[in-house]
Amino acid sequence: MSELALHPAAQDLLFRQARTANTFTAEPVTEDQIRAVYDLVKYAPTAYNQSPLRIVLVRGDEARARLQKHMAEGNRPKTAAAPLVAILAADNEFHQELPSLLPHFPRAKDLLFADRPVREESALLNATLQAAYFILGIRAAGLAAGPMTGFDFPGVRKEFLDDDHTPLMVVNIGRPGTDAWFPRAPRLTYDDVVTTV
Amino acid sequence: MSELALHPAAQDLLFRQARTANTFTAEPVTEDQIRAVYDLVKYAPTAYNQSPLRIVLVRGDEARARLQKHMAEGNRPKTAAAPLVAILAADNEFHQELPSLLPHFPRAKDLLFADRPVREESALLNATLQAAYFILGIRAAGLAAGPMTGFDFPGVRKEFLDDDHTPLMVVNIGRPGTDAWFPRAPRLTYDDVVTTV
Repeated sequence: MSELALHPAAQDLLFRQARTANTFTAEPVTEDQIRAVYDLVKYAPTAYNQSPLRIVLVRGDEARARLQKHMAEGNRPKTAAAPLVAILAADNEFHQELPSLLPHFPRAKDLLFADRPVREESALLNATLQAAYFILGIRAAGLAAGPMTGFDFPGVRKEFLDDDHTPLMVVNIGRPGTDAWFPRAPRLTYDDVVTTV
Repeated sequence: MSELALHPAAQDLLFRQARTANTFTAEPVTEDQIRAVYDLVKYAPTAYNQSPLRIVLVRGDEARARLQKHMAEGNRPKTAAAPLVAILAADNEFHQELPSLLPHFPRAKDLLFADRPVREESALLNATLQAAYFILGIRAAGLAAGPMTGFDFPGVRKEFLDDDHTPLMVVNIGRPGTDAWFPRAPRLTYDDVVTTV
């Protein structure tokens, strides 16, 4: 008997058949699709519901060209070809929204997150969790995600964000094109990764 | 028409009905369940397939007592009550496995990850992505996850890990018990989070 409650087709869609795509078809990715992804993954957990992920969708030709110049050379062709590119960032001033996000503990903003270094560390961890939820959400929409950290972080920050937002990754989004991926690389086994005490 | 390919029941299981549990039933969480979770979520992406997440399952009474003393006071009752507790950590020496994990780019180990600070930054980001996949994997098994960062990080590191492994979070795992959660807190809207350029 399967140990998982999740339907095997959903397991395939999110984990087994989904792959990081390196090429894409020309089919556009609509705002409605990204809204549906966000409105699903927004429910996944963050510490104190702090929800620090912020997303910049790069749609215009001029903006795409500005992003291209900050990408590592090996990432430029796929970032040029993807129907949509998203910059994922952590909001280091997330505590401003905390009183409405955490109504049963309104003093969390001042008690826990008054210090910027504390916020930066928490925003990094929790926005990264949300980046993973977002990648799986893209797959939930039947699309392929191509997350990348090969880019000039200060350059992207200066070009698209500000001092209060830290870039995490750039994600190409679309339907996989021709030769979209390498053969699946091996994974560590359960016994490589898990110890029991 | 729905914009999502993922079946609505799977959307509910992973995102909408699943909640962070604060109480649990006594029903045990088996090794077979955690194996099934791992064998699903291991396929989700990390940079260069580096797969730095390591998991310590705290099963024994003596180990549970050792963990308890490092948890923030508010987290102790739920960590005491959860059928299973997992410590999630980043392996800062993940590059040792890279030649087998990335067979089409065997030199990545030495070209990209020779420096420990570079590895630590990359392991933190990518193990955190994997922590999010693992949380959703727990939900895919029909279980509730209770991720927590309220604990003494150096204490947990010293007690259960070593200098090469950085703790990320502790996760309570089990079936939700009585009054397992607060009412759902509000989320930021799409327009709060997403900008388009």
